[in-house]
Amino acid sequence: MIPRYSRPAMAAIWEPANKFRTWFLIEAHACDALAELGVIPAAAAAAVWEKGDKPYTPERVARIDAIEAEVKHDVIAFLTELAEHVGEPARFVHQGMTSSDVLDTCLAVQLTQAADLLLADLDALLEALKRRALEHKMTVCMGRSHGIHAEPVTMGLKFASFYAEFERARDRLRAARADVATCAISGAVGTFANIDPAVEVHVARKLGLAPEPVSTQVIPRDRHALFFAVLGVIASSVERLATEIRHLQRTEVREAEEYFSPGQKGSSAMPHKRNPILTENLTGLARVVRAAVVPALENVALWHERDISHSSVERMIGPDATVTLDFALARLTGVVDKLVVYPDAMTANVARMSGLVFSQRVLLALTQAGVSREDAYRLVQRNAMRVWEGEGDLLTLLRADTEVSAALDAEALAGLFDLDHHTRHVDTIFKRVFGSALTPPAGAGGPAGAPE
Amino acid sequence: MIPRYSRPAMAAIWEPANKFRTWFLIEAHACDALAELGVIPAAAAAAVWEKGDKPYTPERVARIDAIEAEVKHDVIAFLTELAEHVGEPARFVHQGMTSSDVLDTCLAVQLTQAADLLLADLDALLEALKRRALEHKMTVCMGRSHGIHAEPVTMGLKFASFYAEFERARDRLRAARADVATCAISGAVGTFANIDPAVEVHVARKLGLAPEPVSTQVIPRDRHALFFAVLGVIASSVERLATEIRHLQRTEVREAEEYFSPGQKGSSAMPHKRNPILTENLTGLARVVRAAVVPALENVALWHERDISHSSVERMIGPDATVTLDFALARLTGVVDKLVVYPDAMTANVARMSGLVFSQRVLLALTQAGVSREDAYRLVQRNAMRVWEGEGDLLTLLRADTEVSAALDAEALAGLFDLDHHTRHVDTIFKRVFGSALTPPAGAGGPAGAPE
Amino acid sequence: MIPRYSRPAMAAIWEPANKFRTWFLIEAHACDALAELGVIPAAAAAAVWEKGDKPYTPERVARIDAIEAEVKHDVIAFLTELAEHVGEPARFVHQGMTSSDVLDTCLAVQLTQAADLLLADLDALLEALKRRALEHKMTVCMGRSHGIHAEPVTMGLKFASFYAEFERARDRLRAARADVATCAISGAVGTFANIDPAVEVHVARKLGLAPEPVSTQVIPRDRHALFFAVLGVIASSVERLATEIRHLQRTEVREAEEYFSPGQKGSSAMPHKRNPILTENLTGLARVVRAAVVPALENVALWHERDISHSSVERMIGPDATVTLDFALARLTGVVDKLVVYPDAMTANVARMSGLVFSQRVLLALTQAGVSREDAYRLVQRNAMRVWEGEGDLLTLLRADTEVSAALDAEALAGLFDLDHHTRHVDTIFKRVFGSALTPPAGAGGPAGAPE
Amino acid sequence: MIPRYSRPAMAAIWEPANKFRTWFLIEAHACDALAELGVIPAAAAAAVWEKGDKPYTPERVARIDAIEAEVKHDVIAFLTELAEHVGEPARFVHQGMTSSDVLDTCLAVQLTQAADLLLADLDALLEALKRRALEHKMTVCMGRSHGIHAEPVTMGLKFASFYAEFERARDRLRAARADVATCAISGAVGTFANIDPAVEVHVARKLGLAPEPVSTQVIPRDRHALFFAVLGVIASSVERLATEIRHLQRTEVREAEEYFSPGQKGSSAMPHKRNPILTENLTGLARVVRAAVVPALENVALWHERDISHSSVERMIGPDATVTLDFALARLTGVVDKLVVYPDAMTANVARMSGLVFSQRVLLALTQAGVSREDAYRLVQRNAMRVWEGEGDLLTLLRADTEVSAALDAEALAGLFDLDHHTRHVDTIFKRVFGSALTPPAGAGGPAGAPE
Repeated sequence: MIPRYSRPAMAAIWEPANKFRTWFLIEAHACDALAELGVIPAAAAAAVWEKGDKPYTPERVARIDAIEAEVKHDVIAFLTELAEHVGEPARFVHQGMTSSDVLDTCLAVQLTQAADLLLADLDALLEALKRRALEHKMTVCMGRSHGIHAEPVTMGLKFASFYAEFERARDRLRAARADVATCAISGAVGTFANIDPAVEVHVARKLGLAPEPVSTQVIPRDRHALFFAVLGVIASSVERLATEIRHLQRTEVREAEEYFSPGQKGSSAMPHKRNPILTENLTGLARVVRAAVVPALENVALWHERDISHSSVERMIGPDATVTLDFALARLTGVVDKLVVYPDAMTANVARMSGLVFSQRVLLALTQAGVSREDAYRLVQRNAMRVWEGEGDLLTLLRADTEVSAALDAEALAGLFDLDHHTRHVDTIFKRVFGSALTPPAGAGGPAGAPE
Repeated sequence: MIPRYSRPAMAAIWEPANKFRTWFLIEAHACDALAELGVIPAAAAAAVWEKGDKPYTPERVARIDAIEAEVKHDVIAFLTELAEHVGEPARFVHQGMTSSDVLDTCLAVQLTQAADLLLADLDALLEALKRRALEHKMTVCMGRSHGIHAEPVTMGLKFASFYAEFERARDRLRAARADVATCAISGAVGTFANIDPAVEVHVARKLGLAPEPVSTQVIPRDRHALFFAVLGVIASSVERLATEIRHLQRTEVREAEEYFSPGQKGSSAMPHKRNPILTENLTGLARVVRAAVVPALENVALWHERDISHSSVERMIGPDATVTLDFALARLTGVVDKLVVYPDAMTANVARMSGLVFSQRVLLALTQAGVSREDAYRLVQRNAMRVWEGEGDLLTLLRADTEVSAALDAEALAGLFDLDHHTRHVDTIFKRVFGSALTPPAGAGGPAGAPE
Repeated sequence: MIPRYSRPAMAAIWEPANKFRTWFLIEAHACDALAELGVIPAAAAAAVWEKGDKPYTPERVARIDAIEAEVKHDVIAFLTELAEHVGEPARFVHQGMTSSDVLDTCLAVQLTQAADLLLADLDALLEALKRRALEHKMTVCMGRSHGIHAEPVTMGLKFASFYAEFERARDRLRAARADVATCAISGAVGTFANIDPAVEVHVARKLGLAPEPVSTQVIPRDRHALFFAVLGVIASSVERLATEIRHLQRTEVREAEEYFSPGQKGSSAMPHKRNPILTENLTGLARVVRAAVVPALENVALWHERDISHSSVERMIGPDATVTLDFALARLTGVVDKLVVYPDAMTANVARMSGLVFSQRVLLALTQAGVSREDAYRLVQRNAMRVWEGEGDLLTLLRADTEVSAALDAEALAGLFDLDHHTRHVDTIFKRVFGSALTPPAGAGGPAGAPE
Repeated sequence: MIPRYSRPAMAAIWEPANKFRTWFLIEAHACDALAELGVIPAAAAAAVWEKGDKPYTPERVARIDAIEAEVKHDVIAFLTELAEHVGEPARFVHQGMTSSDVLDTCLAVQLTQAADLLLADLDALLEALKRRALEHKMTVCMGRSHGIHAEPVTMGLKFASFYAEFERARDRLRAARADVATCAISGAVGTFANIDPAVEVHVARKLGLAPEPVSTQVIPRDRHALFFAVLGVIASSVERLATEIRHLQRTEVREAEEYFSPGQKGSSAMPHKRNPILTENLTGLARVVRAAVVPALENVALWHERDISHSSVERMIGPDATVTLDFALARLTGVVDKLVVYPDAMTANVARMSGLVFSQRVLLALTQAGVSREDAYRLVQRNAMRVWEGEGDLLTLLRADTEVSAALDAEALAGLFDLDHHTRHVDTIFKRVFGSALTPPAGAGGPAGAPE
């Protein structure tokens, strides 16, 4: 997490003010429950709320830091500073609790807050993808396997594919959020030896968490491992979309381009440059988010009822992975939103291979016309290879190939070189992905080849 | 995946016979749908089933391999061999399909088969954990944080904690199974240009899969990434349980031991050795399973409608991760099942620290008795440190400390040194984890300290 | 490691025959040293060589396996089978040694054997790269940053860059080989309590290893971690070269192509396809090799004098990483060797951007002519952006721009659009990389644009 | 990189002041070379040094940030601010260079600076390990394989093992430092089209770097990948030593303890606790450092002459990995330096297993006495198993075993139970590791069992 790749709302989750505020809420709610149980005076619980329920200003944070520098224990420092506000009743705070009760429950709150921002990020990205999918539903462009022209698709299908992928991301993140949303207030080794389980239940409900069914001193780390693993999967999907755009912007392809603002400089040395730097940057950020996955997995096998090896890891990957992914998703949404699409270039690229992309249809038609599959393949391939060598376009060559024309006449052959054939099922796919076929607004996108 | 760490049922999923059998089912079901649509003759579809529906014997596999060695294409080799059985109608097989339709749908079938075995493995492990949890529900043993004695827990709680963790593993694996259980029969770039979407729907239903809403040439790899990530999380939980047992078996701790059969040799050089080699082995196997996670994440960002970089990765991590995890879960179940537990040693270890483990309770009692938290901490700590130095047991030292005895008399102090206090909420936790408190059978486990 | 991605020589290193043969050598050399020390009879050592020094045939391997199935200990099984050949003197074999002495020293031998094959692979790759670099030393092609045309380079420079990178790979692998080439025969905890250090020294010398200065029971695993990390770095370089070729083969770029043999089929469905499947495959294999790095790092922190968690990991990643990398390097060498380069396409691509790629030179010339850097940038960029919009070529537009022509006349401008300017220092770079400028053979490659 | 785990000197390397200072040096040295070549006026180069050679104060950094916020280009912002100091001659700065020339060369400088600090850290750690090795050269303690008592070693041998491991770390880091210590000033695609190679040579020499033999726009990233991989291996060695100490401090073992200062609190809830929190923390920090390895490997395969995906990764892992490892090594050195060793506890633990640890020696003696290896094993094991069951000590049981006593009389048996036998070769190992046997100072350590 570095400022360059951070957005304020997510960064704030990991700042001391939010952490201490959450600690306060945990302690104060626990006091209510302890008072209800008669373990501490009701007046003490009331005092905590009355005198302690105020923001953690920079001054308060500095005060806590100063105390921690002395006592070398963050929770004790926090409690000491709180006592300075609450006064004498403060001694009833944290009764029977252990530091992990506060730290782990706070982490659960922070991770759910982070997940909520990421879910909103995904909503925004999905909205942008849907809009662009609709806009370019019928914008024909080249489909490529292995980087080689295969058969036509539409730009809307590309967007739809990413829409479906990020919908899965959203589902998985929701599940992962639920997985980490637990509260543990169970004492030194999770036995509730010195604190009633009712306290945990109360605090959990107040914070929107579920009680952890069985904690040791800590909330089990398989929950966090799954959470970071899901972030890693989402980051990989970010990389896939970023890679797609980088490819489309390559000079020789140039079917789409990141928005390039007037006055922007692509390169200090080469004034002609317009580079896909945002999506390249996203490719790198995906690596950074994924880097959290392995340490999160290594954090699971704590010794016995806990060791503290996970703590330093989480201090880093907690902010790093969530802040970076939040930034990446927002950047990606902006890129999708403003992506400049060049339907003419798409049309030109489809046409570039002189009809090669219809080879499968010819193959199937020959087969239907009674040619064996092996022969049909041979016939189409030998003409296709001549196209690669620059000896003409496929239709012309096929027509001139007597073995081919024996099976398919000129008209039948020409009928196979038809882009519309490839877009017949776009509606079906859109219905699957978006729940309806979505009709593009008049004038938007349109079949490649149409006048723009 | 190596034989040493493989079990037959899981290994069989990845063997050619199962792969080709699945390819056959995909093709044959597709023929039915194509016949229904009138694309191919109904008789052809019938012939495929009649003549092709037989096991892939080693001879057939060898024949396919021989053809592949010639044509260098696995699906073509498979179809050629099939044609040798089906005869002329074979030319209607695979109409309008692309190799990936077969390969990716087959992988989905294999991964769901693998998931089903792993889910059964988890069921068996959960059963063993539950049985041992029940047996040792009230077997008091030391709870340790940082490897240092903290406060007492029970061995049953340890098992319950792992039970809850592996239940989460099961839930996640079920979700991951659903995530990869999709079928794609959508043609060269996913547009259904040459095959009707109804074929996909039919094949999916027959194979227990869902149709992939939008495929490109391939099923999107975020699904597989999530699947392998979940295996990685489960492997980490395996490591946690293995590590717990390794710790309990350490010579100085020796509260539990892997079963050591008569005649077994622990070391060729040192005849006295009894080593926790199974759980050490599981620790290593966890690393192997986790090693699949990063490549699976790197597989997501394929170029455009697909590149084939994921393929070699999946040929390796598909079998490796599932076979190894299957083996690991079964081995772990055996270890749990036969784990030798030493309640006497647990009792002795609890007693070893001369009462230190009751320090928190004394601290809280002093606080309740009006001593400030700071003073109480100081008083208990100064006596506890003397215990570490071997100067006596904590209760005796506390009684002799006039500042302490001013607040708590001898009887009150003695009352704090009470193991039962720490097991009061075991029922509560068991109810949370198992849905009921579970009553141990008469004679099983029992409170540490009871005569065995 | 699967047969599809294996070559025989590397696979043989990891087969039982080589393993047992190495174990025999370790034991037999140790007997010599023990006899020299007078610990065992010289006749016994002689008998071991006389009767035991023969190949491990499949029959012998099967016999050892059968014994292991019974005694559940691989080294004991090996020794038992050896005794069947050697007879009574066999009881002097393995005196004072521990299994790890044999296993770890054997692993060192296997890793150095694997390293030697990989070094030979690198030599072959370097040879191919050098040959192609020479051939295309002056074949001008587009240099691209961010996938966007930047300035011209030569295809030879590309090869030279990879040559230098794989030379570094070779240097690092040599160092890594030395790092793992140690021998430990030091007994149960490395103290030589029951075996004289002279035995270790003797065996090490005979096997071409160095004695491990301080072993515990095992050779420390930081050595192996470094080894696998170096393999991971090499795999990443394989990925870089594979990615370069995949890019060059993209339909729209098509400056180079993997060799496509007559009769080859690129796609079962689309007869026109010629895909870079080898380099895509290499991209995936790189991920597989890299997957060994993290588990190798996790293997370092064994408990105390050793635990056995590393063992299962090494049984898998040892063969997997070396066999896969060997296969990948050989495949890559083949690809480089037979890569079809299209200098005409390179020339066409350089020309495609209508002179944009000379923008920096114009910028510098304007600066030299007294225009401020800011103004110069603005002038060039505004004309370059018109080229992107398809409004003409850069030279024509610049000439028509009065602000530009005020500083540089038409002739001066034209002189800047000169490819030779960009190849002036190719000799310098070749000298740095190859130690000499290398002169291409007459007729090879040649400046793009020259008649082919 | 977070303040909690940072030390100032390493953090400063990554701060803007050092970065901009390095950029200045690169530009100013380049001016000298350009002036020497006659490309720019000598007076301009002189002016750059005279007016620009001053520290980057917070004010200057803020000024550069302000400019960057406007022009969105860090190097341009830097040059603009520099021009404000240098005045008119500033227009000769950066002639023919590209941003990467500055950025990549600066990264090389920063990584070598970081490596130098890490090398000094390793020196300090080695010094501490050597001192403690000497001190405890003959302090006998238990050697453990699989966490189970094996045979005796000495605490000095443990330290020596880590000394050797961190010496290897130092060697590898030196090599990795050399690998990244290159300078590239080669222009937009590495062809020196607009800048003479002599500039690169000059700047490299001035900065203590080697010229990069062939750069593209960037220095090849396999160099950086190797660098971070080596940091990952070192981190794993940190984890091994940390794990050893954590084990030795376990309550039941307690042979060593992290220094616990008067007034320190081990746990807020349990006043008796003394936890190995520093080494647990180091275990986590090792995971963090290792997390840089995979992204560094993924950074290698940049597209063509460069893409910018590596940049965001390096902005994070550069500081993160070096700052964290620096902190970890320093913390580890402190732990080693002040580690409290308990020789009495070691003696007690060696004795704990009632002579079991001498089992191998008895086995060998029986063999020497003519008993077959199989019988000897059986005899020793059956008595050893009785010891595990608490039925007595091994020597007594063996003496009472008539089969054993038939081969070895009571005196012979007793002679085998001798700790000195296990320390005979400590001198040899010390000589290998330290170059001399090292004699402990009088009174230090001493054989376990000696009066302390």
